[in-house]
Amino acid sequence: MKRVDNFKSIIDQYEVVFFDAFGVIKTYAGLVRGIESTFDYLQQQKKEYYIVTNDASRSPEQLATAYHKLGLPAITQDRILSSGMLTKEYLDLKVDDGIVAYLGTENSAHYIESSGLHTIPVSEVNDDNIDKVNALIFLDDEGFDWSADLNKAVNLLRRRTIPAIVANTDHAYPLTIKDVSIAIGGLATMIENIVGKKFIRFGKPDSQMFMFAYDLVRSHSSVGKKDIVMVGDTLNTDILGGNKFGLDTVLVLSGNTRASDADTRITATGIVPTFICDSAVVDLGGFNF
Amino acid sequence: MKRVDNFKSIIDQYEVVFFDAFGVIKTYAGLVRGIESTFDYLQQQKKEYYIVTNDASRSPEQLATAYHKLGLPAITQDRILSSGMLTKEYLDLKVDDGIVAYLGTENSAHYIESSGLHTIPVSEVNDDNIDKVNALIFLDDEGFDWSADLNKAVNLLRRRTIPAIVANTDHAYPLTIKDVSIAIGGLATMIENIVGKKFIRFGKPDSQMFMFAYDLVRSHSSVGKKDIVMVGDTLNTDILGGNKFGLDTVLVLSGNTRASDADTRITATGIVPTFICDSAVVDLGGFNF
Amino acid sequence: MKRVDNFKSIIDQYEVVFFDAFGVIKTYAGLVRGIESTFDYLQQQKKEYYIVTNDASRSPEQLATAYHKLGLPAITQDRILSSGMLTKEYLDLKVDDGIVAYLGTENSAHYIESSGLHTIPVSEVNDDNIDKVNALIFLDDEGFDWSADLNKAVNLLRRRTIPAIVANTDHAYPLTIKDVSIAIGGLATMIENIVGKKFIRFGKPDSQMFMFAYDLVRSHSSVGKKDIVMVGDTLNTDILGGNKFGLDTVLVLSGNTRASDADTRITATGIVPTFICDSAVVDLGGFNF
Amino acid sequence: MKRVDNFKSIIDQYEVVFFDAFGVIKTYAGLVRGIESTFDYLQQQKKEYYIVTNDASRSPEQLATAYHKLGLPAITQDRILSSGMLTKEYLDLKVDDGIVAYLGTENSAHYIESSGLHTIPVSEVNDDNIDKVNALIFLDDEGFDWSADLNKAVNLLRRRTIPAIVANTDHAYPLTIKDVSIAIGGLATMIENIVGKKFIRFGKPDSQMFMFAYDLVRSHSSVGKKDIVMVGDTLNTDILGGNKFGLDTVLVLSGNTRASDADTRITATGIVPTFICDSAVVDLGGFNF
Repeated sequence: MKRVDNFKSIIDQYEVVFFDAFGVIKTYAGLVRGIESTFDYLQQQKKEYYIVTNDASRSPEQLATAYHKLGLPAITQDRILSSGMLTKEYLDLKVDDGIVAYLGTENSAHYIESSGLHTIPVSEVNDDNIDKVNALIFLDDEGFDWSADLNKAVNLLRRRTIPAIVANTDHAYPLTIKDVSIAIGGLATMIENIVGKKFIRFGKPDSQMFMFAYDLVRSHSSVGKKDIVMVGDTLNTDILGGNKFGLDTVLVLSGNTRASDADTRITATGIVPTFICDSAVVDLGGFNF
Repeated sequence: MKRVDNFKSIIDQYEVVFFDAFGVIKTYAGLVRGIESTFDYLQQQKKEYYIVTNDASRSPEQLATAYHKLGLPAITQDRILSSGMLTKEYLDLKVDDGIVAYLGTENSAHYIESSGLHTIPVSEVNDDNIDKVNALIFLDDEGFDWSADLNKAVNLLRRRTIPAIVANTDHAYPLTIKDVSIAIGGLATMIENIVGKKFIRFGKPDSQMFMFAYDLVRSHSSVGKKDIVMVGDTLNTDILGGNKFGLDTVLVLSGNTRASDADTRITATGIVPTFICDSAVVDLGGFNF
Repeated sequence: MKRVDNFKSIIDQYEVVFFDAFGVIKTYAGLVRGIESTFDYLQQQKKEYYIVTNDASRSPEQLATAYHKLGLPAITQDRILSSGMLTKEYLDLKVDDGIVAYLGTENSAHYIESSGLHTIPVSEVNDDNIDKVNALIFLDDEGFDWSADLNKAVNLLRRRTIPAIVANTDHAYPLTIKDVSIAIGGLATMIENIVGKKFIRFGKPDSQMFMFAYDLVRSHSSVGKKDIVMVGDTLNTDILGGNKFGLDTVLVLSGNTRASDADTRITATGIVPTFICDSAVVDLGGFNF
Repeated sequence: MKRVDNFKSIIDQYEVVFFDAFGVIKTYAGLVRGIESTFDYLQQQKKEYYIVTNDASRSPEQLATAYHKLGLPAITQDRILSSGMLTKEYLDLKVDDGIVAYLGTENSAHYIESSGLHTIPVSEVNDDNIDKVNALIFLDDEGFDWSADLNKAVNLLRRRTIPAIVANTDHAYPLTIKDVSIAIGGLATMIENIVGKKFIRFGKPDSQMFMFAYDLVRSHSSVGKKDIVMVGDTLNTDILGGNKFGLDTVLVLSGNTRASDADTRITATGIVPTFICDSAVVDLGGFNF
């Protein structure tokens, strides 16, 4: 584990950079200050980069548009890999017909729609259509009535032996500098414990997320795992998952992990990043060009 | 483990009977058919009986009134021991002043009020009063907005290092013959996992629940544990807790555990009741008196 | 939570003191230096005291003898309450006949022997006697071959639907200033997960342990919970259990919890002692008598 | 979920077949009777097949030799993919120098040796070399003294912040028709809970295992996930992992899952195979050629 002052020196060592989104590129308050310079430098150096995110609330297209509005045009749709995309791949491969019920917003559901499948919110499941429901997807913590629809989801899974897919493994996410919000991954785990069935989870630290990104990289270049570095703010997802997949990893201190307790948490969890850096911001100094 | 045809033969062997409520005396559809004869027989034989329940949604007085309305006057307030009463004892002993925030109905909160403590729903916690909140109590799954108030409870526990008390350990409860409902114990476990703190739980199978009942019995008689039998429909709470406390136990098949899978579940869990009986109904036959 | 300089001021506020043993009265290196003065003061003030310990490896008689050899005659057999004693009570009440198999030393097993029961080490279970085995007890991490006998315990529980009792809930214990040792509670949890059955655990933080001590106190005096304080070095067992039972609690920093991270761990776990004190040693100054 | 009488009809639908080893091809008693015909048919039909196994106790070469001795020459070294191979890849990518300590046999350790790394059993870790230990690997339940070396592994992880790798996720494995044996995955989970750190696990149901096999398939053919079927006897590993990776799956009833409770367990776990078949044996009848 090495402390690095300038994120530039990390980019210089790899061919491809995977970034977590929240806590690395943006926070609840907007873009991480100065992060534009990182993407300028990546493009100048002709290095590849991807956003690898557990955000299944919107499509890559919508996520990219949000970055553009924040002033970061460098993050295009084709560079965003989300756990929602794995969910969509699962439905394409494993659910041939019938209804897919979901918990989340219409936006999140629109994205996972596959040919041959009909998507409805859990609130619209009823005695007439329940026998056609062939999967339940946990997409987002918004867009439904928690009390009514979480109970409905429990009873749907008690009556139907169908796969339950969790498109975001996070249990909570930061809302403001002080507060967090319960994420769909936390609600899903509660329901999993109540019904006693085994859910399928997509998202970091699970390897399938990294493999999805790695496959995309290999589709147009010949880099190996040694040439890729994963950058994240969370030991349990970004760093653990990156390490396990065989990538070098960078813990940045601009999000979930604060400088004051990074060392304590690394020792406590045994999850060791290759590098620690204050942020993913490249400091080009005044005379670099 | 013995199979018993008539619950009467069980009563005949003990001085005191502890009953679980739901699935033993009543179900979602009302009283278990014929259960009145059990309490007639208990009174005739001058045996003591208590209801030992994880229901913290109402006071013993209100629970007793509900039994009276159903046609069971034998269950009086002083014979009901609930996990809510343990919660009230905890507050009396351990929280001296300030505010107790709760998730549940006004009814459930009214009951736990102690002298010197001010009780408010989690929805009323704000920046002005949060520093006076000295405990958070999980009482009931009704009476609050799940999305707004569960998130508020998470952030209260992140800002304040205070005890969190779960007054009902059940994770779900039966709503109709087919459906269940998520219980406050399930919601509390989700929040416990998110905040990473250790909650205090009252209710079966925890020994404190049985001790509370046993203390009451001993306050006016000299029976020992060998003279008491615990009757319940749930292996994980009634039977496990009763066994651990040193009581003989009866599994009845009128609730959570169906006759068709009682043996399978006993073998799978290793939780073995002293007796199995179809129900807690005493069959006095036509000529017993 | 108040910081207290001299443990004497705590004794002055209560009628009865419950002490954890390891980390409070003794460590791997012998008695906590100066702890004799605490028991001198307790006796001088005619206050009651008990040792409430998760140690099931020896009988109270043997534990008392060990204290006497260390130079602490004040700790007599009748003042020691161990999780082993709860195990013995369980066997007395719930297992009528047959064989009790155990993992532990002969010493630990000798103590739990009950009339009517035959006690054998797991290594002596065989095809001829397995059908008579009516309970399995996890007593101590010493006295058996881990590889052979842990595997034998797994297969015993797969063939026989019998209660499995864990007489010590700790998962590890301190061996030297640097090293710990896996405790029988940790081995038992591994086996519980493999066989999928529900074990019965005796020991702090479980309430039954505190109730056992409280019953003894009440058998010869009329003190209430408000008059008792629990002293321990471990948040998860001594303090959590004492708090839940309704007792005031003292965290001492002479054992598992170090001064440097006491505050961090209290905030992280939400387990708050009534008092924090460097040790349980009473400082009588030079002129107290 | 479809019941299939003859495994032949499954082979006819796919280009590539992944087989679990234990419970599918062999049991504790030797080869599954008639399984040779399956591999004859696969070769005749020019279909590809791989063994995807959580067995890290030996190298693929040694595993292949064992099949040859049993009379199954069709299973060659290059067709075996084990969780041990993922462990080796991890060491190659992530541990540059120093000592790798292991629990297991010399055989298992020999296989994971990488250039630049020195491999020693945990029993040989001492005060002189502990600072050079850069990883701990859980390989096999045999080859070490459980009591001495599991305790040593605990204290190694308390002193050194290093990755702990579990090369076999299984918690137990069948030993005879009646008995099971605790596997290294079960021992590792116990230690993970005691030290409170996060271990890295390789093996089904984890996706990285399936990806490893899929990458190998794609290296010399252009098949997609739709063309591959995973065959296994265990819902929690083979079927859950195969489903999540997007493969069709076959549950065979020749191992862990018995015909009498297959339906119950599928409903209870919610893990649904694409097909159920008595065994993976191809029945070619008398006149198929």
